[in-house]
Amino acid sequence: MANITKKVSWSSRADESGATGEGTPLLNGSELPKYSRQDSLRGRPKEIPHNEKLLSLKFESLDYDNSENQLFLEEERRMSYMGFRCLEISRWVVCGLIGFMTGLIACFIDIVVEKLAGVKYQVVKQNIEKFTEVGGLSISLILWAVLNSAFVMVGAIIVAFFEPIAAGSGIPQIKCYLNGVKIPRVVRLKTLVVKVGGVICSVAGGLAVGKEGPMIHSGAVVAAGVSQGRSTSLKKDFKIFEYFRRDTEKRDFVSAGAAAGVSAAFGAPVGGVLFSLEEGASFWNQMLTWRIFFASMISTFTLNFFLSIYNNKTGDLSSPGLINFGRFESDSVAYNLYEIPLFIAMGAIGGLLGALFNILNYWLTIFRIRYVHRPCLQVMEAMLVAAVTATVSFAMIYFSNDCQPLGPDHAEEYPLQLFCADGEYNSMATAFFNTPERSVRSLFHNQPGTYNPLTLGMFTLTYFFLACWTYGLTVSAGVFIPSLLIGAAWGRLFGILLASITSSGSIWADPGKYALIGAAAQLGGIVRMTLSLTVIMVEATGNVTYGLPIMLVLMTAKIVGDYFVEGLYDIHIKLQSVPFLHWEAPATSHWLTAREVMSSPVTCFNRIEKVGTIVDVLSNTSTNHNGFPVVVHVAGSDEPAKLCGLILRSQLIVLLKHKVFVELARSRLTQRKLQLKDFRDAYPRFPPIQSIHVSQDERECMMDLTEFMNPTPYTVPQETSLPRVFKLFRALGLRHLVVVDDENKVVGLVTRKDLARYHLGKHGLEELQLAQT
Amino acid sequence: MANITKKVSWSSRADESGATGEGTPLLNGSELPKYSRQDSLRGRPKEIPHNEKLLSLKFESLDYDNSENQLFLEEERRMSYMGFRCLEISRWVVCGLIGFMTGLIACFIDIVVEKLAGVKYQVVKQNIEKFTEVGGLSISLILWAVLNSAFVMVGAIIVAFFEPIAAGSGIPQIKCYLNGVKIPRVVRLKTLVVKVGGVICSVAGGLAVGKEGPMIHSGAVVAAGVSQGRSTSLKKDFKIFEYFRRDTEKRDFVSAGAAAGVSAAFGAPVGGVLFSLEEGASFWNQMLTWRIFFASMISTFTLNFFLSIYNNKTGDLSSPGLINFGRFESDSVAYNLYEIPLFIAMGAIGGLLGALFNILNYWLTIFRIRYVHRPCLQVMEAMLVAAVTATVSFAMIYFSNDCQPLGPDHAEEYPLQLFCADGEYNSMATAFFNTPERSVRSLFHNQPGTYNPLTLGMFTLTYFFLACWTYGLTVSAGVFIPSLLIGAAWGRLFGILLASITSSGSIWADPGKYALIGAAAQLGGIVRMTLSLTVIMVEATGNVTYGLPIMLVLMTAKIVGDYFVEGLYDIHIKLQSVPFLHWEAPATSHWLTAREVMSSPVTCFNRIEKVGTIVDVLSNTSTNHNGFPVVVHVAGSDEPAKLCGLILRSQLIVLLKHKVFVELARSRLTQRKLQLKDFRDAYPRFPPIQSIHVSQDERECMMDLTEFMNPTPYTVPQETSLPRVFKLFRALGLRHLVVVDDENKVVGLVTRKDLARYHLGKHGLEELQLAQT
Repeated sequence: MANITKKVSWSSRADESGATGEGTPLLNGSELPKYSRQDSLRGRPKEIPHNEKLLSLKFESLDYDNSENQLFLEEERRMSYMGFRCLEISRWVVCGLIGFMTGLIACFIDIVVEKLAGVKYQVVKQNIEKFTEVGGLSISLILWAVLNSAFVMVGAIIVAFFEPIAAGSGIPQIKCYLNGVKIPRVVRLKTLVVKVGGVICSVAGGLAVGKEGPMIHSGAVVAAGVSQGRSTSLKKDFKIFEYFRRDTEKRDFVSAGAAAGVSAAFGAPVGGVLFSLEEGASFWNQMLTWRIFFASMISTFTLNFFLSIYNNKTGDLSSPGLINFGRFESDSVAYNLYEIPLFIAMGAIGGLLGALFNILNYWLTIFRIRYVHRPCLQVMEAMLVAAVTATVSFAMIYFSNDCQPLGPDHAEEYPLQLFCADGEYNSMATAFFNTPERSVRSLFHNQPGTYNPLTLGMFTLTYFFLACWTYGLTVSAGVFIPSLLIGAAWGRLFGILLASITSSGSIWADPGKYALIGAAAQLGGIVRMTLSLTVIMVEATGNVTYGLPIMLVLMTAKIVGDYFVEGLYDIHIKLQSVPFLHWEAPATSHWLTAREVMSSPVTCFNRIEKVGTIVDVLSNTSTNHNGFPVVVHVAGSDEPAKLCGLILRSQLIVLLKHKVFVELARSRLTQRKLQLKDFRDAYPRFPPIQSIHVSQDERECMMDLTEFMNPTPYTVPQETSLPRVFKLFRALGLRHLVVVDDENKVVGLVTRKDLARYHLGKHGLEELQLAQT
Repeated sequence: MANITKKVSWSSRADESGATGEGTPLLNGSELPKYSRQDSLRGRPKEIPHNEKLLSLKFESLDYDNSENQLFLEEERRMSYMGFRCLEISRWVVCGLIGFMTGLIACFIDIVVEKLAGVKYQVVKQNIEKFTEVGGLSISLILWAVLNSAFVMVGAIIVAFFEPIAAGSGIPQIKCYLNGVKIPRVVRLKTLVVKVGGVICSVAGGLAVGKEGPMIHSGAVVAAGVSQGRSTSLKKDFKIFEYFRRDTEKRDFVSAGAAAGVSAAFGAPVGGVLFSLEEGASFWNQMLTWRIFFASMISTFTLNFFLSIYNNKTGDLSSPGLINFGRFESDSVAYNLYEIPLFIAMGAIGGLLGALFNILNYWLTIFRIRYVHRPCLQVMEAMLVAAVTATVSFAMIYFSNDCQPLGPDHAEEYPLQLFCADGEYNSMATAFFNTPERSVRSLFHNQPGTYNPLTLGMFTLTYFFLACWTYGLTVSAGVFIPSLLIGAAWGRLFGILLASITSSGSIWADPGKYALIGAAAQLGGIVRMTLSLTVIMVEATGNVTYGLPIMLVLMTAKIVGDYFVEGLYDIHIKLQSVPFLHWEAPATSHWLTAREVMSSPVTCFNRIEKVGTIVDVLSNTSTNHNGFPVVVHVAGSDEPAKLCGLILRSQLIVLLKHKVFVELARSRLTQRKLQLKDFRDAYPRFPPIQSIHVSQDERECMMDLTEFMNPTPYTVPQETSLPRVFKLFRALGLRHLVVVDDENKVVGLVTRKDLARYHLGKHGLEELQLAQT
């Protein structure tokens, strides 16, 4: 079971690389009894029940608090006002670049998907037309299914075998990253390449997926790459933007990247900014927000510009996003006051259907974790889904006899005649055979009467289950568009039924309006986003009029849905046992104080510490601490020592690597002083302690930590209540918070896991178990 | 000069009421040599140079950190999960109410202004038509000027004599409030009444002002009132929402109120949320933002609904804001790529003109502070401005011969024929005689050729100076609409000139587009808002297409303008010497540490303190501290004592009032225990210490502070750098931050003023002087 968990978890490779690291001989001569990681793996319980009552210990935290040690302060003090101005300007440049590249990637995905879908359509259509009359439609079906499966196979293989973290929409992972959890490999170049390739294959393969969610992940990777001015994967360092090589700055850029992704996906720059803020940033900063907005604007603009060139309408900026809801003119689809209760009812339906979707997907995911864990099985499942999708669609089209006259202007982009008379097309085929984006648009805008109710009902039903089965496959794909499509279908159905009940009312006549509301309700019921989703929808429709109804619908969907189950992304985050910090501590947690919450006892170092001790502590795999309070002992007393600083594992490793020992400094006076640059060069992939060679002689040396530790870590007294600790921790994005007694002696350390452990369950405050999953 | 300062400052009444408080005989038998405030007034320098290099000591800070004392924790722990749910629901109810009432107020203002302007227009028009032929136009002029002056006089009198804080737009004050500065009387009912009355008078009086800015202030007052469930002014306590009677909760509601105000003013709910966040909130909370958005939505919806009833088009939700930019259809006014440099150039012009506006207004304000400080002078100045505005407008209309044909549908709402032929109207009169909102709309949407360039040029010039003179008068009025109007005028001019240069281009043909861009540029150049203003403009135009150009324009305007001078609101905040905390500490302030920044020595209390000592410290007007660290002395040692808590002046005053003395508690065992309710009842107007009677016997009693102090105040070590202190202080919205040494002994206290003192001037880091202005 441990193995199973390993395979499906987001960070499986981290375990592997960790094991590799341990496979190398230990060079530091540690005298401690060494528990190798393999032992500890075997030592843990064989069967870990994979439920949300666990909190994994394998996720590390990002540190959004600058370590203000002497090196840092010296650098900051050396910098002139002009230096800070230049930094500020380079932040803007980086954000512009992020936006530009994200837009380019979106453009690339869009064009390639379009081309592939076009080719596929031509092949299949010719085949169908050839065989419709001779009755050999099963050949067409097989051709279609094989084509789709082939695309999906390629997509699934690159994801399953090369980069499993690229699976899914990537939004849960980015949420975690912005929350401060380090998900291994989530912002690497390889992930981006696999993601882009994967999403193209799965969309072209006709799965019930969208290409919008992955854009957010892609934007985040671009941001993480561009802002560091180097690629560790390609071993290329451009020697620029070195100042930004730390968690604090990188987080800000990743926010901008995620926003740029949303912006490119939906043509919604403001929605992108709000998405970033809603999901990530806890500390709102005016300049940062403005930069994020800039990146978003550039991104949608770039996409728009290049698509206009591609469409031979250079300069016509009318396609700001990957999905385009089409123009909603206020006149034709204005809503009236008495429609608002109807909208709210639709919101409730969306909440119910969303909760159903999430519960089904939750069970499915549990099943996948148990049984579908080997890459080849995952690829096979993906191919199976592709084949089933094709078959079901084909059957639906085949048995549907919903023929519609072909418009004079041939508005349908992929009309299929099938058994319809000449000059007519099969309406079910429009919904199934198109890319999902096209289907959404036609549901929003086609003339009343284009679809008959039975078609819509059947479509909703099948697409609902297909989408639910598809989400969580080992392919890169998002759930936004399928949700919109399901919602648009039943929303349009709702509108048609309304119109048929009240035959006289002309305002009911436009089912497109209800399709839009239904789409919002369904999407809200599944993902449970609020403010940002309202703005995204408003921007995508290009019409401010719908603001209030969409907000009411999303709110209702959220309230109804939350009654049953959490949002889809949160479910997946919980299933990975990520120590995710919510906005506030659980309401009834005032009972708890730092004393109960903290980890204790704490491994501390002295200000001047023996190298051997440090190496032994760092090599101890059973604890694997990352932050160590630095203390001064009161001479000759036995009591706990006073806090004087905090030092990180990563800093100690750099110190050990450069052998910054007191004795050596004395003997080699000419030695170059360690600089902040050395720490930055090692960021973010600090070498493991096992790769650092420390001789027996060196183990007897001393290390002076004064210059490198953070001399002013944030502290709280033991009596501080949990909500207060939580607020400090969350507002400042901390990684370690030292708990001290009233004489400033270290008594404990609070980390992310200690806070994320408590959550509000059905029966009041519950405590999650920590586990080495 | 001290007196002068007193009269014009935002908080003049606070001084007065302080003096009144001191007029009552001291009841507490304090033995200290008492400096009465009058003495200290005389003691300070006679002539305080009123510049921005000062920081006033008279502004107190709001405290966004809950004092988590035993009473508070007991209450929180007693509360069940359901209790928290109910609280959450009541927060939503309060936000709904805030939105509703703000919308109603906006509706009221709109209708009354409309009515008054209509009456005035009829009277003047009849008069003009009567006298145009007999050549007695001077009589019309006098009538017009007198009417305007009368309106403005009423508006100025109620502001100058009843509530000076209601002057101006109120945005600087709300900015300060959300930043955490307590501006006396800014959120009182009386302020609201005067504000609403004042804005109606000044708009009806034809001043170059708008009614939008004051809406933000009005919304904030409504929020502060509704959320407390009582009115101190009306002495009415509804006994509801008692839980919200503290700074933390109130701040959140005031944010919602300000957002609702923006939303009602511009029909921009998302813009309102962003305004609140940009100006105020430092800690972003998802639920809070969503509530703010709810209030905004309700507000614009209420306004829209009631206006639709008023206009006899019930249910037609087409006027979401006080100002309505009219419909911009994307087809008619799409922009092209090569227009973007033009837009940026217009942004630069807006930045320059904005800076000029701000500098002129700065000088004017200095002049006003020096010489126009008595209420009757202020009223006279306002009347003078009204008369001059009328005269100038009249002269402009008179000498202009820009006659335009009256459209077939009589699109002009207030056409003036004057010397034009029948079937024509005077175009200059359209710009001057309308309410500014109407003028803006007609500049945006009137057909090309409606205005000739000379008219626009003259109009820009005169209106620029009139608006500049008007802002800062003792009337309630905003600067948004005048800025938009100036910008729209020169923007349209710019468009016309472009069209005349390149005669062939059809895309240049619509000057309305350039009017919009010009309006954005001018407004951005004056107020320097960024993200929120972009969204407000986009929402007000109802068209997402203009997002990118507006953003570029606003950014350019801000960069260019910031080069010369700050934004208008910031100038006025600085002129009031408010200790305003910006987003981040000055860039080059890593040199400073808490040790240099903090106030020291600190007045501390013992955990069990003598009543007399407490009374004496609180009565000491020369220090006037508000927070006191509570310490325990090490028995028999002389060294500074260890920190064990923090207690506030307001808490001590409640304790003294209820005589919570150790000796009394022993003797009267039946006495009711002091509850959190007692503190809430006294909030926010805690009585002054002078009104509390303490007998000589009682002075010998002891008070046990353990239960009431905050036992876990945030602390920092002395070596903490200023940016780090600043970040902690700002992120958590603190009022007091205790500085301790490495043995947890109190060495200093950091308050808002200590941090706001440092700012980045032309020559690097500067330190402001603290002054008793």
